[in-house]
Amino acid sequence: MTSEQFINKDSITSFFTDLQDRICQALTEADGAGQFREDSWQRPGGGGGRSRTIAEGAVIEKGGVGFSAVYGEATQATLRTLNLSTPADFYATGVSIVLHPHSPMVPIIHMNVRYFEMSTGQSWFGGGIDLTPHYVVEEDAQWFHAYLKNVCDRHDASYYATFKTWADDYFFIPHRQETRGIGGIFFDYLKPSDDTHKAKLFSFVQDVGNAFAPIYTHFMHKNRDLPFGEPEKQWQLLRRGRYVEFNLVWDRGTKFGLETNGRTESILMSMPPQANWTYDFRPEPGSCEEHTLGLLQKGIDWV
Amino acid sequence: MTSEQFINKDSITSFFTDLQDRICQALTEADGAGQFREDSWQRPGGGGGRSRTIAEGAVIEKGGVGFSAVYGEATQATLRTLNLSTPADFYATGVSIVLHPHSPMVPIIHMNVRYFEMSTGQSWFGGGIDLTPHYVVEEDAQWFHAYLKNVCDRHDASYYATFKTWADDYFFIPHRQETRGIGGIFFDYLKPSDDTHKAKLFSFVQDVGNAFAPIYTHFMHKNRDLPFGEPEKQWQLLRRGRYVEFNLVWDRGTKFGLETNGRTESILMSMPPQANWTYDFRPEPGSCEEHTLGLLQKGIDWV
Repeated sequence: MTSEQFINKDSITSFFTDLQDRICQALTEADGAGQFREDSWQRPGGGGGRSRTIAEGAVIEKGGVGFSAVYGEATQATLRTLNLSTPADFYATGVSIVLHPHSPMVPIIHMNVRYFEMSTGQSWFGGGIDLTPHYVVEEDAQWFHAYLKNVCDRHDASYYATFKTWADDYFFIPHRQETRGIGGIFFDYLKPSDDTHKAKLFSFVQDVGNAFAPIYTHFMHKNRDLPFGEPEKQWQLLRRGRYVEFNLVWDRGTKFGLETNGRTESILMSMPPQANWTYDFRPEPGSCEEHTLGLLQKGIDWV
Repeated sequence: MTSEQFINKDSITSFFTDLQDRICQALTEADGAGQFREDSWQRPGGGGGRSRTIAEGAVIEKGGVGFSAVYGEATQATLRTLNLSTPADFYATGVSIVLHPHSPMVPIIHMNVRYFEMSTGQSWFGGGIDLTPHYVVEEDAQWFHAYLKNVCDRHDASYYATFKTWADDYFFIPHRQETRGIGGIFFDYLKPSDDTHKAKLFSFVQDVGNAFAPIYTHFMHKNRDLPFGEPEKQWQLLRRGRYVEFNLVWDRGTKFGLETNGRTESILMSMPPQANWTYDFRPEPGSCEEHTLGLLQKGIDWV
C-alpha cells in the first residue's frame, strides 16, 4: 500500500487482519514449539474480533495477538470528548499484543496499532510499542530505541522525540514511581487533515506494526538461551506483579474495556501466566535488580 | 467499653490499636509457626500507622493486619462529597486485614473497621468482613453468615439483611459477573445522631472487629489439614487472580489509596503471594470448581 492510494476503514482493517496473521506466523516460527489458538468473537453492539493466544511455547510462556473491528453507537463519553451533541456511530479497529516469555532474560513486549472513525467524519490513528525487560541491559535498550527512532525518522523528524516522551509518561506507575519498563513510543489522536495526510499517517502506523515482529524475534533469538537461576525467576515474578498493577490500575485501554463491558478474556490477554507479590521487597544494594530499578525512570535518552 | 461511656476519636483509635494487637496474637497462636513483622510509618500530611505482615506461616502464606490513624487537610473531593465549601481537617482511623492461606481448602478473608471524622463535626463508621473460599462449601458459608447475623442481631434487627446485601453489591466483579467470594457484611456512612447513638454504633463496630479472630481461626483449625492436590492448587491461583482483579480494578479503598498517594506497600498488603492467569479457563462440567462458580452470585440467602 502506497501513500497515493485512497485510504478508508476497509483498507485499514484489511491491513490489520493481515498484520495479525504475519505477526503470529513470525512468532510461531521464532518460538519453534508454541502454536496460536484462535477464538473468534462477536460484539453484541456490532463487529467482533479474532483473539489469538499462545501458551507454553518454547520461548513464550503466555501471550496474545488480538485483532478487533467493532462499531455501533458511540457512548455519551465519546460524544462529549468529541464535542458532539447528537448521536453518532463509531468504527474502531486495531491489533494489540502482549507477550510474556518464560525466561526472565527475555523482555515482555506490548504493541498496539489502532484506528478510530466517527460517522460525523472525524478519524484518528493511535498506537505504540513498549518493552519491559525484567533486567534492563543498556545495549538492548539502545538497540530497541534506535530501531523505533529509525521507524519514526522515516516519517517525521519530530515523531521519535515526541512519542518517546509520550510513552515515558503513559507507561508510568505513579504509586510505584517507576516506569513499567524502558518505554518505547506511544501516540494517539493522529488526525488526518486530508486524504494525502491520512495516507501518510497510515503509512507510519503500518511501519510501526511491521516493526513488531523483527524487534521481538530479535530478542527471542538473542536472549532465549541466556542462563538464569531461581533469584532471577523470583524477580521476574515480582516485575510481572508490577505489570499487573499498571494494567489494572492505570492503563486507560484496560480500564475502559473492563468498565464498558468489553470482552474480558480479550482485554485480559495481557495478564501474565503467574505474578507474585512480596511485602516491601527491596533489592540488594549493588545488585542487578537494583540497577534495573534505577533505569525504570522517565526521561532516559537511550539513543 | 460500654455504651454509657463518652466516645471520641481517641477512644476509638485506642480500641483499634488494641484490636490489631489482639488479632495478631490470635492469628500467631492459631498459625503456630508464622510471626508478624511490624513496620511503623508516618504520613507526610499527618498521622501514620503500623503495618503488620506475615509470610510463610504454617497456615497463612501471606497476610497483613494494618492499623492507621491519619489526619490533615481534607481533599477537595472529600469536601465536595460532604457539601463543604471551606477548608476543613479530617481524621481517619481503622484496622484492615487480608489473609491468604497456603491451602486452597482454607478461605481468603478480609476485614475492615474504620472511623472518619471532620473538624466541622460530621463523623461516621464503616467496615465489614467478607470471606473468599477457593471452594465454596455450603455448610461453612452458612456458619460464617450465621455468625455475622448473630453479631448484627445483637445491635439492630435490620443490620444483617442490609449489610449482607451491601456486601453482595460491593464485592462484585462486573467484568467477570461474579462475586469475589461468598460476601459477608459491608457498611459505611453509619452516622451518629448524638453521643448515645455514637456509642451504640461504636459498640457494633467493636463487635464486628472482635468477631474476626474467632471466625478466621475457626476455619484455620477446621480446614488446615484437609487434603488437596495440584488441580486444587491451580484453581486457588486462578481465584487469587480474580482477587487481584477486584482489588486493583474495582475496590474503592484500594483505588482511592493508590490515586491519592497513600502508602503503597500498606495498601497492597492485600495482594496474594502468587496469582495466575490462564486464557479463558473454564472448569469441567460437574466439577467442584464449576459448583463454586455457580455460588459466586449475589443474593444467596445463606442463613
